[in-house]
Amino acid sequence: MSSMNPAETAQAPDSASQTPGHVWAARSGAGGAVATVWLSHPGRHNAISVAMWRELAESFRRFAGDHQLRAVVIRGESGAFAAGADVSEFSQVRVTRDQVIEYHERLIGDALRAILQCPAPVVAAIDGSCVGGGLEIAAVCDLRIASDRSRFGIPAGRLGFPVAPFEAACLVSLIGRANALELLLEGRLWSAEEAHTKGLVNRVHSRDDWENEVEACIGRIIANAPHAARRNKWLVHLLSRIDDQATLSEGQRQACWDFADTHDYARGLDAFLTKTRPQFQHD
Amino acid sequence: MSSMNPAETAQAPDSASQTPGHVWAARSGAGGAVATVWLSHPGRHNAISVAMWRELAESFRRFAGDHQLRAVVIRGESGAFAAGADVSEFSQVRVTRDQVIEYHERLIGDALRAILQCPAPVVAAIDGSCVGGGLEIAAVCDLRIASDRSRFGIPAGRLGFPVAPFEAACLVSLIGRANALELLLEGRLWSAEEAHTKGLVNRVHSRDDWENEVEACIGRIIANAPHAARRNKWLVHLLSRIDDQATLSEGQRQACWDFADTHDYARGLDAFLTKTRPQFQHD
Amino acid sequence: MSSMNPAETAQAPDSASQTPGHVWAARSGAGGAVATVWLSHPGRHNAISVAMWRELAESFRRFAGDHQLRAVVIRGESGAFAAGADVSEFSQVRVTRDQVIEYHERLIGDALRAILQCPAPVVAAIDGSCVGGGLEIAAVCDLRIASDRSRFGIPAGRLGFPVAPFEAACLVSLIGRANALELLLEGRLWSAEEAHTKGLVNRVHSRDDWENEVEACIGRIIANAPHAARRNKWLVHLLSRIDDQATLSEGQRQACWDFADTHDYARGLDAFLTKTRPQFQHD
Repeated sequence: MSSMNPAETAQAPDSASQTPGHVWAARSGAGGAVATVWLSHPGRHNAISVAMWRELAESFRRFAGDHQLRAVVIRGESGAFAAGADVSEFSQVRVTRDQVIEYHERLIGDALRAILQCPAPVVAAIDGSCVGGGLEIAAVCDLRIASDRSRFGIPAGRLGFPVAPFEAACLVSLIGRANALELLLEGRLWSAEEAHTKGLVNRVHSRDDWENEVEACIGRIIANAPHAARRNKWLVHLLSRIDDQATLSEGQRQACWDFADTHDYARGLDAFLTKTRPQFQHD
Repeated sequence: MSSMNPAETAQAPDSASQTPGHVWAARSGAGGAVATVWLSHPGRHNAISVAMWRELAESFRRFAGDHQLRAVVIRGESGAFAAGADVSEFSQVRVTRDQVIEYHERLIGDALRAILQCPAPVVAAIDGSCVGGGLEIAAVCDLRIASDRSRFGIPAGRLGFPVAPFEAACLVSLIGRANALELLLEGRLWSAEEAHTKGLVNRVHSRDDWENEVEACIGRIIANAPHAARRNKWLVHLLSRIDDQATLSEGQRQACWDFADTHDYARGLDAFLTKTRPQFQHD
Repeated sequence: MSSMNPAETAQAPDSASQTPGHVWAARSGAGGAVATVWLSHPGRHNAISVAMWRELAESFRRFAGDHQLRAVVIRGESGAFAAGADVSEFSQVRVTRDQVIEYHERLIGDALRAILQCPAPVVAAIDGSCVGGGLEIAAVCDLRIASDRSRFGIPAGRLGFPVAPFEAACLVSLIGRANALELLLEGRLWSAEEAHTKGLVNRVHSRDDWENEVEACIGRIIANAPHAARRNKWLVHLLSRIDDQATLSEGQRQACWDFADTHDYARGLDAFLTKTRPQFQHD
């Protein structure tokens, strides 16, 4: 989702291009050692459409068996990382409870799990808006390097819905209880510096240095023995126990989707799409 | 408990008022959407008496069924948050092992659990001393916003006793192993800035801005769909697993109360109340 | 292990003294309340040899039954904490899979567990290189106080091997997933300030103040009731669940040693010892 801040609403429909957006990968380095995955949705701050979530999962699934791969970079085109899931599609694909579960457990979940399970290290190179689903993509990468003009947030509550359980587990495992609650309960956008202080990104660089710093980071990663890098990633992930399944009972998981049956969910989406202020009623 | 620092000992008996202190709640906002819970113990830096722990638990239990409630603020009167549990009562209510268990497992535990389980988001608005039991109250809130003159610490070791298991679990879940050990093993007071760096508070503002920033934070929280806010809180808490019961065996829990049978516990309390330096003997 | 940075390679064999290094303890304070454990390997930045790992474990095992002991400080001689395990011994003691398991599970594991299980609080006083095994020693201490010229890192990937499972568990429990991955996947050295920002050390002081600050910290620790200090340490450690055994299956643990059978492990060690750049092949 995108922020309600007027400066961040480029993904709202009236400024939308008619393309569904695209995720594509390029290889570089000796033997194609480095893959760059581009998030691209022109004019929409790279809002992630259903098609893009699928392409993202597909790209990372292809990496799984690739012995040459030493590192992956995810980045966005044209001055944004990703402004969120593509809310303009929600009235088609994410209305009923079944659709909501399908959208999060399968569509987003498959993409995030494919990134988490990529055997090679994955770096999020963040320059610009990194919001909602975009922030969740960054959260499952192994390192996050941001330019100082980046902005971070999860304003889902303004759109009338809570964060999904697996997505919450990724977030809590990254920044802990206090920061996750601050992000979700306020829905405020964080500057790059605040995101750094709170552990949401590893490093912040000026826009001028950022590109070189991402490259230097990848250079360091691929200077290590590939087997050691993959094993270190695998081991730290296992020890971090990013797992909503073991923590939540089935009833608790089901309760996470109750919002689909509330009137406030419809009010929130409608207000976002019509650029008005939602009047929530707790019903 | 309070600090041994002379500047922080206003809760010591000789400066005590004769009132047991009071916790009370006020409602504001459209439909009474916001509750403010005041900690009040005049002349004692709001040291939390037995009566106040009970009123605190009672206030939050009432909130549990309140559908109108959108956010809660906890704050202290007269330039302090709370300087700790009211140590001047300990010689009556917290001497024997049974009393110690009752005091922590029931009295403090009930209050902290009622705050944790409050369905609406809870913000600690901290201005001044936030020590011992006061810090523990802040630790179970969802957000902590501090003025720059606030001070934080848990100097229980100087009074001759360790932190209780559930209270330790809340602290470790908030700031992690390294910071919790620093806080408990040194017993040093932290400035607001240090508390921020170490994740104990979400934000620090100058005394002049602090009141407005608390209000702005509450404004952001209640602009979100109430169902989403409550679900986000509930979910992050579940995923954070604040639980001493599952982590500690029954024997380990019992060992946490062994201090009640040591001479050093009596020495520490006595030194605190007589404002002398304790001579601990490890017996 | 040591860094590949030329400034950090004093532990490489050609500059080696012929002594295997030594770990020794001294007592100070009233009744010998404070033990200082010295890491000493002259001319090698205190690289930890097999003999030193054993002496370290032995020192801390002796502390376990010592009722007089109130605090322990670990520090290095001559301007370093410890530049890592003594890699110059690896060709004798850490080549085969069985040797690798013995080296980590027994030798390093016994030393780290003895420090973790020391009943009294343990402070790492860090001034200079704190790398590889040196950083792991610091990570299992209860507090870490660093001078501003200290440097931190785990460049094992450059030497062709991943971090061992228990050592990874200690690291992840201290600094979390994001920082542990940054440390391991880049293999970059962190300044004292960066280590502080990322929670790897509790405090950083100028070289001039550092000695006094360590002393002040110990003074605060021993001003607390000894029983309370020991119980606080024990309780926070239990709640922090530093445990690779419960998290990893037996098969997963075995996979952590697969590196011993790779050619890249031999290439990495050889490059380190000959001060050349390793050409890893992922085989």
